[in-house]
Amino acid sequence: MSDSDIRLLSVGSALPGPPVDNATLARHFGMPALWEQWIDVFVGTSTRHLAVDLASGEVRTSLAELGEQAARRALDAGGMAPADIDLLVLGTANPDLLMPATVNMVAEHLGIDGIPTYQLQSGCAGAFQALDVAVHMLAGGGYRNALVIAGEVCAKHFDVKADLQALEPAEMVNAVLFGDGAAAVLLTADPVDGAVVVRKVLNRLCGLGREPGQVVPWFGLADRASTPAAVREDYKAIELSVPIMAAEVLDELVEAVGWTRSDVDFVLPPQLSGRMSERIRERLDLKDAVEIGCVAETGNVGNALPFLQLERLLSRMLPGDRAVGFAIESSKWIKGGFALERM
Amino acid sequence: MSDSDIRLLSVGSALPGPPVDNATLARHFGMPALWEQWIDVFVGTSTRHLAVDLASGEVRTSLAELGEQAARRALDAGGMAPADIDLLVLGTANPDLLMPATVNMVAEHLGIDGIPTYQLQSGCAGAFQALDVAVHMLAGGGYRNALVIAGEVCAKHFDVKADLQALEPAEMVNAVLFGDGAAAVLLTADPVDGAVVVRKVLNRLCGLGREPGQVVPWFGLADRASTPAAVREDYKAIELSVPIMAAEVLDELVEAVGWTRSDVDFVLPPQLSGRMSERIRERLDLKDAVEIGCVAETGNVGNALPFLQLERLLSRMLPGDRAVGFAIESSKWIKGGFALERM
Repeated sequence: MSDSDIRLLSVGSALPGPPVDNATLARHFGMPALWEQWIDVFVGTSTRHLAVDLASGEVRTSLAELGEQAARRALDAGGMAPADIDLLVLGTANPDLLMPATVNMVAEHLGIDGIPTYQLQSGCAGAFQALDVAVHMLAGGGYRNALVIAGEVCAKHFDVKADLQALEPAEMVNAVLFGDGAAAVLLTADPVDGAVVVRKVLNRLCGLGREPGQVVPWFGLADRASTPAAVREDYKAIELSVPIMAAEVLDELVEAVGWTRSDVDFVLPPQLSGRMSERIRERLDLKDAVEIGCVAETGNVGNALPFLQLERLLSRMLPGDRAVGFAIESSKWIKGGFALERM
Repeated sequence: MSDSDIRLLSVGSALPGPPVDNATLARHFGMPALWEQWIDVFVGTSTRHLAVDLASGEVRTSLAELGEQAARRALDAGGMAPADIDLLVLGTANPDLLMPATVNMVAEHLGIDGIPTYQLQSGCAGAFQALDVAVHMLAGGGYRNALVIAGEVCAKHFDVKADLQALEPAEMVNAVLFGDGAAAVLLTADPVDGAVVVRKVLNRLCGLGREPGQVVPWFGLADRASTPAAVREDYKAIELSVPIMAAEVLDELVEAVGWTRSDVDFVLPPQLSGRMSERIRERLDLKDAVEIGCVAETGNVGNALPFLQLERLLSRMLPGDRAVGFAIESSKWIKGGFALERM
């Protein structure tokens, strides 16, 4: 319910290392050439960036570092400095540590202090939740400029020594599906001519009575030796439900801002994988809208995805252009979305 | 900057199992009687509640279960049902899983759906951050009633088989310092005669250039065998800085709402341990205010503490009474506080 006139000034992003293609992954994991074709056909992801070095297993980049880089690029693009920021929000499913919260290490790297910071724990809906919190805070007065960051570093879940041939397809796919990265959005409550306005942010739990589609456990020092809790992804449920829910979010978004589907110039669909995005696009029935995606090149970067799409969108929006973006979080089923318009 | 007239209707809490006293801990860990005296003198905590069964090491209660119980008690005390809630916020340092977020499992247990949910990752400041987000959302219109939950289940860090005699005092103290639990606060934007009003919520990072006073790592399935990252608590820095920062928050809070120190009828100081609370109280120079604490009976329950104190406070506040509560998060140094007044 964030009807607002908060302006979205700029977006910056940071992806760790060079893109890792499917042939490189196949060589690393000792998988046959057939596997590459399987990735192309069933996943649709060509490359991804990884914070972990495949050869050594070493983690090269933290989420705090990626968040800082993305934030600096957003600030540069928006003509602001860290000192101009009076609100900092981060959405992630994979913080570097439990404490300190990663958002506060990003602040440290940026030289930011004395302001409220928030870190939202969420899967794919975290970018929308972080945006929603920031828009509400800005709209309430008392704050001028907010940095909203979203990102993932999946290194703690990514086993470079995994024997993929021994895994079920539903597990094996995790080695190719995900990527690491961060993106940051600069918002302001100040009037700015020709800026993109955040018309609406939607964030709504819709999981009552529905089995979680994704379960990701974590371990503390005292239970590292415990029986592995199941990391579960119910890809069948995701494949079935996400396109339907995405269409519902689209309906709700355009109705909330008083648009019709034909008013939408750009659509940023959920980006679980290249193939899933195709299915969702078919379902959306938005023939006139230009689709903005990145999952084929970045992999599924979780919370970073909507902002990575936003980065690709922003320079293409002309005055009067309207865009909708959305994601469905399958963990406990959350609908997230935003509607943007360039003045 | 949450100047508001949002009402705080009720508080509910949930503590797992019976209180575990120092003698029981000493017997379990094979520690000498002297150790009990050491806890009394240097920590000041008599009992705590644990979600883990000491004998078996089994986790008996999840944060989602404690959050649900606390929420139901807050709803009962406030005369509301889960269906009345249109905003759900949880603050914790120790979610049950990374995905789904625990806040959404609390929603599932309560039968709540179709509303925004937020989970804030934070140490001791998480309750203030969750309160701040909810107050802003309610004050912005569009929402009526919010449940704000804060809690911790430290079982993943609590090693029931630890050899405490082999540990340094700074590490050993962790076995007696912490406790598990959750508490929930019911807020409404509706006018309610005689209710407690949230005059101000303060949440501010103050850690620039300051070493983290507390570092808590987590592990994913792929890195459970990695070299343990340091769980670090810099108790010297905490002892030195927290009383000073607490006094700063007090000054800032009373100034923000236009009170003087002598207007404060109740004070809810930071509750790191019984002994620390004494040092903080001395520093605060609030002779006329009644102190509300619980750490001696609950241990340090992290984010739950400010709301557990609130529960003890609420029935004691008469019309016109004013209260301040605050916490200092030592991980990357955050000041949190609230100012309340019964109408």
